[in-house]
Amino acid sequence: MIKRITIIGAGNVATHLSTGLHKAGLTIVEIYSPDSGKSATIAEKVSSKVCNDIEKLSPDSDLYLLCIPDRFITEVSLKIPRTDGIVAHTSGITPINNIKSHKNKGVFYPLQTFSANRKIALKNIPFCIEASSEYVYDELFRTASLLSSNVKKVETEQRQYLHLAAVFVNNFVNFMYSAGKEILNDKNLSYDILLPLIEETAKKIKTVSPDKAQTGPAKRNDITTMEMHKKMLGNKIELIELYDKISNLIIKKYNE
Amino acid sequence: MIKRITIIGAGNVATHLSTGLHKAGLTIVEIYSPDSGKSATIAEKVSSKVCNDIEKLSPDSDLYLLCIPDRFITEVSLKIPRTDGIVAHTSGITPINNIKSHKNKGVFYPLQTFSANRKIALKNIPFCIEASSEYVYDELFRTASLLSSNVKKVETEQRQYLHLAAVFVNNFVNFMYSAGKEILNDKNLSYDILLPLIEETAKKIKTVSPDKAQTGPAKRNDITTMEMHKKMLGNKIELIELYDKISNLIIKKYNE
Repeated sequence: MIKRITIIGAGNVATHLSTGLHKAGLTIVEIYSPDSGKSATIAEKVSSKVCNDIEKLSPDSDLYLLCIPDRFITEVSLKIPRTDGIVAHTSGITPINNIKSHKNKGVFYPLQTFSANRKIALKNIPFCIEASSEYVYDELFRTASLLSSNVKKVETEQRQYLHLAAVFVNNFVNFMYSAGKEILNDKNLSYDILLPLIEETAKKIKTVSPDKAQTGPAKRNDITTMEMHKKMLGNKIELIELYDKISNLIIKKYNE
Repeated sequence: MIKRITIIGAGNVATHLSTGLHKAGLTIVEIYSPDSGKSATIAEKVSSKVCNDIEKLSPDSDLYLLCIPDRFITEVSLKIPRTDGIVAHTSGITPINNIKSHKNKGVFYPLQTFSANRKIALKNIPFCIEASSEYVYDELFRTASLLSSNVKKVETEQRQYLHLAAVFVNNFVNFMYSAGKEILNDKNLSYDILLPLIEETAKKIKTVSPDKAQTGPAKRNDITTMEMHKKMLGNKIELIELYDKISNLIIKKYNE
């Protein structure tokens, strides 16, 4: 049973997971980061040691959780001392087998967006678990279940498609929020007035499918309004092109 | 003081506003629609009469609220019988002066997305009020305040930019949800797994500016992941182009 955990990394995912695991009663043994300042900030919250030389990590943790950029996963996994513990990454896109030279491998992917300075309840977050064996799967499942009631077995390919869909519903959605903000800022209007609409847009699709929830000038193929909107965007050529691109996809989907 | 209201139209906006105004203790006198079936459905809820000949509307209401497509506003306003009441539309994009031949004109624009069969609390919705006189403004402000605690004076041009921004944060965001759903459906994955992420994405920007909340491969200029995502989209050419377009805007915004 996983009781002792080493966290590799000191970014947003490392912060949120180590805090959650610590609160769930598990022991965070060490936090590794080349940046001792960052690891120390987390370590203080979770009563852990820090380590800035990965090859000197204690080898007797039950779980080594890699909370690092995707491209470092293979390299870093090779440097973790030989261990009987589980080595798992938290990436949406990276295959489980990018973890090298360890017997017990896993994926522990929280399908959520984490920011510094923003507390977030872990209990509803989907945790996608993949493992090199039934034993590892059971261990990771049990650990994730301490954090969340939404733990699922998800194979690499499925997880990668979840990650791709997440780019649309999180990264791209957030960019639409930025565009809305930019449009209003330029007219000295406060962004706050959009917040109830943003909230309702997200809430609505819990009960109404997004295909049915679609409204607006493109859905109605209301060319007059769309032309006016583009004119209003003035010299924001990129936003005009974006407006055109998405509107045309909506028109095509609903009017052909 | 506005006490008696005639509703012109029988769509989602008409439904939500007449229900709200009725609950607030105002009298819905008549609901006009060329489709008597639709107006009857609302009329039953709000103890109102129905009317399917606009020229026969009773002229003694205090407010005639146009809840109809933008392109009909001028034409319909011309057909409303001569009245001392206020004639107001509920459109985001239409100038107040598209209401013709009435002395007391106004705009009563709820900045929200309304769907059939989805109840929504009006109390936080921003109501944007514009009026042809101080008298009309005060009357409309007071009426909107019965529904919401978020009533604002907004001139035509500002309202049009709010409407444009709303297209980005509602219509376009919803289209991103559709894209996410399509991607998962094709892999037999349930869309529900994205709901916590969608909810957090919307909640986050109440406290974190969308510029700071941006995450993901484009933000990091992680070309490997972006190339892989596009490959995963297979023959969905339009989604690949959309992925490219938005990713490039994010890359440009955060990496140049």
